[in-house]
Amino acid sequence: MSKPTGPLVGKRIIDLTQVISGPMSTMLLADQGADVIKVESPSGDSLRLMGPKHNGLTAVFFSCNRNKRSIVLDLASDEGKETLRDLIATADVLVQNFRPGAIDRMGFSERAVREIKPDIVYVSVSGFGKTGPYSSQRVYDPVIQALSGLTDIQYDRETGDPRMINFVIADKITALMTAQAVTAALVARAETGEGQAVDLSMLDSVVSTIWPHGMIGLTYEEQEFDIRAAQNPMDSIFPTKDGRHVTASCVTDSEWEGICKSLDRPDWIEDERFNNAFNRTVNGEERKKLMAEEIARFNSEDILDRFEQYQAPAAPLVNRMELMKNAQVQASETITTDYYEGFGNVRQPRPAAKFSVTPSEIRSAAPQFGEHSASILKDLGYSDQRIAELVNSGALICADTSGS
Amino acid sequence: MSKPTGPLVGKRIIDLTQVISGPMSTMLLADQGADVIKVESPSGDSLRLMGPKHNGLTAVFFSCNRNKRSIVLDLASDEGKETLRDLIATADVLVQNFRPGAIDRMGFSERAVREIKPDIVYVSVSGFGKTGPYSSQRVYDPVIQALSGLTDIQYDRETGDPRMINFVIADKITALMTAQAVTAALVARAETGEGQAVDLSMLDSVVSTIWPHGMIGLTYEEQEFDIRAAQNPMDSIFPTKDGRHVTASCVTDSEWEGICKSLDRPDWIEDERFNNAFNRTVNGEERKKLMAEEIARFNSEDILDRFEQYQAPAAPLVNRMELMKNAQVQASETITTDYYEGFGNVRQPRPAAKFSVTPSEIRSAAPQFGEHSASILKDLGYSDQRIAELVNSGALICADTSGS
Repeated sequence: MSKPTGPLVGKRIIDLTQVISGPMSTMLLADQGADVIKVESPSGDSLRLMGPKHNGLTAVFFSCNRNKRSIVLDLASDEGKETLRDLIATADVLVQNFRPGAIDRMGFSERAVREIKPDIVYVSVSGFGKTGPYSSQRVYDPVIQALSGLTDIQYDRETGDPRMINFVIADKITALMTAQAVTAALVARAETGEGQAVDLSMLDSVVSTIWPHGMIGLTYEEQEFDIRAAQNPMDSIFPTKDGRHVTASCVTDSEWEGICKSLDRPDWIEDERFNNAFNRTVNGEERKKLMAEEIARFNSEDILDRFEQYQAPAAPLVNRMELMKNAQVQASETITTDYYEGFGNVRQPRPAAKFSVTPSEIRSAAPQFGEHSASILKDLGYSDQRIAELVNSGALICADTSGS
Repeated sequence: MSKPTGPLVGKRIIDLTQVISGPMSTMLLADQGADVIKVESPSGDSLRLMGPKHNGLTAVFFSCNRNKRSIVLDLASDEGKETLRDLIATADVLVQNFRPGAIDRMGFSERAVREIKPDIVYVSVSGFGKTGPYSSQRVYDPVIQALSGLTDIQYDRETGDPRMINFVIADKITALMTAQAVTAALVARAETGEGQAVDLSMLDSVVSTIWPHGMIGLTYEEQEFDIRAAQNPMDSIFPTKDGRHVTASCVTDSEWEGICKSLDRPDWIEDERFNNAFNRTVNGEERKKLMAEEIARFNSEDILDRFEQYQAPAAPLVNRMELMKNAQVQASETITTDYYEGFGNVRQPRPAAKFSVTPSEIRSAAPQFGEHSASILKDLGYSDQRIAELVNSGALICADTSGS
């Protein structure tokens, strides 16, 4: 592992989370230079089991845990607890996403942790927070999609049926919210020297994220309206002659002019149905139908060239297998490929935020189960003998050096 | 406006952004106590025009700009530029989302701004970054959905056609990423005293967010596979007898047992098709079909009571108009209602992250156009006469006190 760079260099995070939302949040912080120590139970992060493995790790585990180190502790044992306490004493942040109450029963409540490290930032991520009918329920992403109104936002306009968004969007939003909250708490601590507890729920994270724009009908009590009736669907997808798809949008008049010229329909520019933003919205269905008929006359590349020529906002629909070959994705260097012993070439998204002075970077692969158990404890000053005793007692598990 | 609390109290942000992603990112920081000064051009943030107004403000503008102050400056004028320079001299962060190059031409490149305030965090948000075929294009959310692979993730499994996600997800993800990057840069500055430039693009933000889980087939070059063929769709939506819908999921055996008991089908617990997580996935389509048949026998409330009794992860599908009445949303206090003069009761999502020592809060409505133009400059030490001169020259616009 190369020496970390990034805005969070020098900050140590004890990461007790598993599955997606928690680990993805700490990975973002690890990309930014934080020293994230992933503490796993002897059964391991269950994300290690989700999908086919390569060199011992599932792809989703790799992509949520790069740049971290892994230590495996049995927190049911006194020695395991004591070791975790020694780690906490060196940490700036602790993040956990057990169900409410579980961490207290394990002996690592905020109060207990703060006795070990008074200025720690103590972060709890849960599905629903500490109260309410669902608070003790195990949480899956679809449950949050259902309760937050997301399945209503994604409803089928033809049948009226609700629909899921087809990826774990609630986990992802929670991960970003959590990473932001951790850094905000570190800003406060830099100012005051004081740590604090930070609580986030997936439900709150999703509702607060979709509210602006998604919930406009609920905002003003005096002007409440059913947003479903007023929602302008984002369905500007047009099939092309060669069986591909493109999207094209416009807000300003000049953008609309660009679309009309691209489609050889200059007559639409001054057409009363479409000659300003309001009319284009009111007559949106008709406009899209007419645009679809014209776009279907072109091959994808040809119409995109024309859209570019006339400066109309447009893009090809890129499927995931084509993503890396897309000219914009390549020019942006959105995806990096690095070689790691045992894994071969591994593709990861470049950390999105570019810091000019303290660049983020992907400096190591995700850790094997317990890969750093021994080295982390040696750094703490544990002797080889002490480490061997911990292994013998079952409180510590070191890496399976077979590698898979 | 009450005195701010929150982890970012004392940090001043000059916010030159408009529409959704930029303003939503700075609103998150304003909720956390930052003093966000929204600098608008004489034509105003175009989000002020999107939708019906109430007391002069659209709902989406309110929900992206609460807790901020607004000053209106004509940055084409020398006096306007000079006033902005005076503001920048007092700031910790500047955020802008003009198209690449535009801010430089206005005279506020990073270099120019850093001469005024050497340790500032200078944040640029764009659609695609500074290079590539789309970099100078005006960006709309559907364009990012198309290019990032999101329309592929959301594709229709029956027809194979790509589909949009029906809200401005790319804007939202970018907003969260940006807020996180700002606080990370402030952590670094607290450590070193040094500011820096931070660049984010919407495309990078979305790809890096969906990559874990969404792009697992691309991660290992040696084991590349077409994720579309392997994707387990998140479509566990079941209609009930009373015409409503519920979702129910399970990963563990005990959760499956809970589902079987809830549906009076104990015979499924040991059924070879479903008796472990692997079999339940392989036979997922059949399992969902059978579950749907049983769930359709119950009214929504009845089956949800049973799911709760047997601890099966489940939830009703809540449409947006029902959201505020949901028992979990109420217990979590996910949505707050505050009275503001002129607006009446306004509903906003509570800032998701709860900070124990420095609580976030919603302390003021979104600002009217130029509402704080005069008071902000008085705080800077501008005389009434100087302010009047700026207004007369057209460099400064103060609030239209008519209120709408």
